[in-house]
Amino acid sequence: MPMSAESVVLGIDPGLANTGWGIVLQQRSQLECVAFGCISTEAGAGLPQRLKRIHDQIAAVILRFKPTCVGIETVWFGANTKSAFATGQARGAALVACASESLRVEEFSPRQIKLAVVGTGTAEKGQVQYMVKHLLSLEVEPRPDHAADALAAAICFTAQNRMLEASAQVR
Amino acid sequence: MPMSAESVVLGIDPGLANTGWGIVLQQRSQLECVAFGCISTEAGAGLPQRLKRIHDQIAAVILRFKPTCVGIETVWFGANTKSAFATGQARGAALVACASESLRVEEFSPRQIKLAVVGTGTAEKGQVQYMVKHLLSLEVEPRPDHAADALAAAICFTAQNRMLEASAQVR
Repeated sequence: MPMSAESVVLGIDPGLANTGWGIVLQQRSQLECVAFGCISTEAGAGLPQRLKRIHDQIAAVILRFKPTCVGIETVWFGANTKSAFATGQARGAALVACASESLRVEEFSPRQIKLAVVGTGTAEKGQVQYMVKHLLSLEVEPRPDHAADALAAAICFTAQNRMLEASAQVR
Repeated sequence: MPMSAESVVLGIDPGLANTGWGIVLQQRSQLECVAFGCISTEAGAGLPQRLKRIHDQIAAVILRFKPTCVGIETVWFGANTKSAFATGQARGAALVACASESLRVEEFSPRQIKLAVVGTGTAEKGQVQYMVKHLLSLEVEPRPDHAADALAAAICFTAQNRMLEASAQVR
């Protein structure tokens, strides 16, 4: 697939209570943080309403920033079943919004994201946040963590893009 | 909350590969099966597209049969993390469709559903299917299993309705 010189990538860190999102603009090897945020839902709000809020807010982010592709973390299967189920529901709600706009979605394992952002698959959370700040030339580490994790997923997508582009140029 | 004499209940048995659905009309203590079906998605279709299909098909069922309330099974937390995550995503997609129409959603444990349909929380799957057929006066057991499980969740909702109505009359 030919890579375009410029991509707007949406990163998502899904969670029922907090879904982080971040928009990264990639221009060749340059990365720029366009925006980031966190969609919080209240435990007392009722499950369907919480999921609808996640869906609607992600849809609003897509409408506003017009990304063409999405990087999203897969769940860590060592997590307990209950949290995997809750995260799965939030992820389903967010991905319906992405599919409605026909965005290209890539899933990455926590290891892949750490490898792309820090250079080692066993990096600590703090190292990931430090590198997100560094790679996006931010003055401070993005807060909350969920937004930083979402930006890391977006950066992982751009790293994959750059690798594919480099391998296309070699051929 | 006052119960209406007539309710149209949507039952959902969510799953990434197969999401069962069923519509039950409750008129006081009478139950009628209006329709049921199963939304199947292909493993090769891409996760966001599969989730969008589940969302869109449930939205279409809601548009067609105009239910006002929804009964949905909670996942069994003894299940493995991977399947809980997959089911969670499908459930999230389905519930976004329900929330978009402001339907009243009730979640039931497998035990609650068995109790409402068979009269014992430890009933076998075959007994549940037999009782779904019996309670809805169907000539054969609904197929596939996912549709029967969805109808069981809808019946569980109506049982709760009837209990609330009975307790309101006693007062």
